[in-house]
Amino acid sequence: MIRLVLLRHGESVWNKENRFTGWTDVDLSEKGIAEAHEAGKTLLREGYTFDCAFTSVLKRAIRTLWITLDEMDLMWIPVERSWRLNERHYGALQGLNKAEMAEKYGDEQVFVWRRSYTVPPPPLDADDARHPGKDRRYAALSPAELPATECLKDTVARFVPYWEGAIVPALKEGKQVLIAAHGNSIRALVKHLDNIPDDAIAEVNIPTGIPLVYELDDDLSPIRHYYLADEATVRAAIEGVKKQGKAEK
Amino acid sequence: MIRLVLLRHGESVWNKENRFTGWTDVDLSEKGIAEAHEAGKTLLREGYTFDCAFTSVLKRAIRTLWITLDEMDLMWIPVERSWRLNERHYGALQGLNKAEMAEKYGDEQVFVWRRSYTVPPPPLDADDARHPGKDRRYAALSPAELPATECLKDTVARFVPYWEGAIVPALKEGKQVLIAAHGNSIRALVKHLDNIPDDAIAEVNIPTGIPLVYELDDDLSPIRHYYLADEATVRAAIEGVKKQGKAEK
Repeated sequence: MIRLVLLRHGESVWNKENRFTGWTDVDLSEKGIAEAHEAGKTLLREGYTFDCAFTSVLKRAIRTLWITLDEMDLMWIPVERSWRLNERHYGALQGLNKAEMAEKYGDEQVFVWRRSYTVPPPPLDADDARHPGKDRRYAALSPAELPATECLKDTVARFVPYWEGAIVPALKEGKQVLIAAHGNSIRALVKHLDNIPDDAIAEVNIPTGIPLVYELDDDLSPIRHYYLADEATVRAAIEGVKKQGKAEK
Repeated sequence: MIRLVLLRHGESVWNKENRFTGWTDVDLSEKGIAEAHEAGKTLLREGYTFDCAFTSVLKRAIRTLWITLDEMDLMWIPVERSWRLNERHYGALQGLNKAEMAEKYGDEQVFVWRRSYTVPPPPLDADDARHPGKDRRYAALSPAELPATECLKDTVARFVPYWEGAIVPALKEGKQVLIAAHGNSIRALVKHLDNIPDDAIAEVNIPTGIPLVYELDDDLSPIRHYYLADEATVRAAIEGVKKQGKAEK
């Protein structure tokens, strides 16, 4: 039996401010740092260990991973960073407040932007300072790979080749793998692993900072999955994620 | 012109306690953490940036690197860890106090153990709990690669293949490289780069936490090197390293 652990980064400064983040490289909040320590302590207490880890090129995921590895005394394991594990690119919405957008455009439009599988938010202009073409860390990407916006389908499309090319080989070698990533890159993987239909993935929410364990058979088909937290904690965390898209009452 | 930056980790808990450390995985002291922050701030202020970094599998070097990258907003660059960048293995001396050993065996014997190019300290027994064969992070090493002790010549011998195989190719691709490592793995590289004779390397001391810049020509021959600190700071730091091997007065 193969065991894979997925970890969404702890709360970021913009999660806290309820702003669309996407590829903006915002850091963890104090609460997010505490969540990462808790994740590491939980994994250690539950007897987990890892041979290698994968993360994005965004510091909220990397710092979550660093803190987790530090807590587990695993700072020495190989870590591979890839833009393919980044959060979904949120296009021109990046930096804007979710509740303000909901007031302006309505809860429904914001829900579509947040959760539609195929409708991306409005794109960034190529000359917008926020465009990833202006960031040195994406210099090796081809123009076709550089997103100006993404729907979840786009995130799945750029994530799956990395899953097949980098993570699956590690799992098949028997390595114990930790993935520290983002709400939507983890949703992309969960959709792929569990074959979730396009119209059902909208209702899947991943809480921050709680390790999500997938048990897979030799063909990497999921046997079962579970969070390393009690049910009430997981439910409260998921409700928190869902609420973010709503206008303030 | 190729520019390579070498960084010896900040003071560790055992540097502070004046104990032989070697491959023991001790953490940075408070002072060592401050030194790492200072190194990152200095590199940023002096206009340095990096495309990739190399470090050992020991947390005092990895944490120094993490703090430096964090200060420089470069957490996203690829980092490769290798045991070949580890500190020199100190054999059966690991964990013992340098000044106590000097009282017991004399300053001269301790100087030989610390600085002889070809005389290693007494080896660890294979069943000693400190032997690297008992540590999961070295599981992929062959019995011939697993040291029970090392003289600097041994450290050079296991470092140079990694230099040639992993770091030189990155430099030849035009990458700006940072190496965060240890007193003796950096001395091994300096000896190799500058062709320092076996009997002259004993007097080369590398201070903790001060970036050491090598400017290299296209054949990777050194043009010049310098520390990113004023001369008095470097001299005081080097004197501190030299004094460690002496009996307390």
